[in-house]
Amino acid sequence: MNHDFFHRLSDAARAAIDLAEELEIDDKGEGDHYDPVTQADRGAERAMRAIIERAFPDDGIWGEEFGWSREGAARHWSIDPIDGTRAFVCGLPSWAVLVGVIEKGQHVAGMIDLPDLDERLVALDGETLLNGEQVRVSDCASLAEARISTTDPALFNDAQHEGWQRLYAAARLKRYGLDAMAFARVATGGLDLACDTGLKPHDYDAIVAVVRGAGGHVGNWSGGDDLSGGDVIATSSYALYEQAIEAIRG
Amino acid sequence: MNHDFFHRLSDAARAAIDLAEELEIDDKGEGDHYDPVTQADRGAERAMRAIIERAFPDDGIWGEEFGWSREGAARHWSIDPIDGTRAFVCGLPSWAVLVGVIEKGQHVAGMIDLPDLDERLVALDGETLLNGEQVRVSDCASLAEARISTTDPALFNDAQHEGWQRLYAAARLKRYGLDAMAFARVATGGLDLACDTGLKPHDYDAIVAVVRGAGGHVGNWSGGDDLSGGDVIATSSYALYEQAIEAIRG
Repeated sequence: MNHDFFHRLSDAARAAIDLAEELEIDDKGEGDHYDPVTQADRGAERAMRAIIERAFPDDGIWGEEFGWSREGAARHWSIDPIDGTRAFVCGLPSWAVLVGVIEKGQHVAGMIDLPDLDERLVALDGETLLNGEQVRVSDCASLAEARISTTDPALFNDAQHEGWQRLYAAARLKRYGLDAMAFARVATGGLDLACDTGLKPHDYDAIVAVVRGAGGHVGNWSGGDDLSGGDVIATSSYALYEQAIEAIRG
Repeated sequence: MNHDFFHRLSDAARAAIDLAEELEIDDKGEGDHYDPVTQADRGAERAMRAIIERAFPDDGIWGEEFGWSREGAARHWSIDPIDGTRAFVCGLPSWAVLVGVIEKGQHVAGMIDLPDLDERLVALDGETLLNGEQVRVSDCASLAEARISTTDPALFNDAQHEGWQRLYAAARLKRYGLDAMAFARVATGGLDLACDTGLKPHDYDAIVAVVRGAGGHVGNWSGGDDLSGGDVIATSSYALYEQAIEAIRG
């Protein structure tokens, strides 16, 4: 596994998605059952699975569209071919191709690929590269200075909403609606904190290695490392994470 | 005034903004008083003003950074060199260069330029072009089918928030955080409704011609055309606008 391998996955996914969009344009007016999003999702996942299968035939693969192959393998690939489907259908650039690699429970590698921006973030061997250049989180260690983001406050339950409102009041700048792009911007230093709830492993598996490889911290909303509840916070530092947890607790 | 003229404005603004970002990189570590956002804003506005001054010396110019020249002229240019400053500083692609042309109170031309996406939307002579190709709003005429967007629900007053919540409940898909890019996507058909409050003329002057030139409707939150209160809704059709007003009224 090396950086080139992730670029091959990205090339294949982007090609499959472009193809589905072209087919959709050709299809217009001929029927209403064709679903370009489904086609793009499935095409991209199928293309990436085939590449992984050939290169690493013993690895597990867990994709959002086609489920598990070799569940229980020591290492597996977690794939979300199009994260941010709502952005994708609206022509907004925050959708991403996500790939995470998990070995014995650890997130050892990952890719957040933002095709509309031609940005490939690949984490491997503890460092994160953007289109081949190493990136670092910001040096923000104070919530009062932080630029923070969540996708949609209407998705929170009451307790989460109260926590978010305290974060909102304490932070310097707030952004919405970015899906995985928010976590990518924590890795590249444009944002200092990104948080979401209700995430599935396919949504966060790629994020963990990318943010950590850039020097950031990833944890849950309760101050711990277990992300399986789906509530995830990524920050530029552990100090900022601690302040965020304190604010959320009130 | 023709399409080429708007491309000249966009070229000049983008060059000034790129230059300010390069200067900021050079400057790092040498002092903390340099502000690349201010430099980019001012540089872009100055560049566009000079081009307009030479081509149309009798026209008024009203820029966010340098105010009025020839206030009261029959025609004037309304300029926001960087709309979406918060997105700009976070490296998020929704920031825009906005130019609107107002003649005897009418929005006769406009440009929403999205440099990070290399998308120039120019409205002139009643039609809107994206990088030279004509665009149309979606054919959505029903709120239940609509993809809607606002920048930040925390900016609403109580009445606006209640109105937005009713819109949210009625619509199919919701997005946040897009600033002028939301209005650009109404023009290109990716979104069906974009609404914001607290906008200033520099924020909406460009939007009006761009959305109308693509076949959409622009009005205020009360069902009227007067935008001077800063509450603006752009929709893909008048039918959708009427349904939105009804939902907001409750």
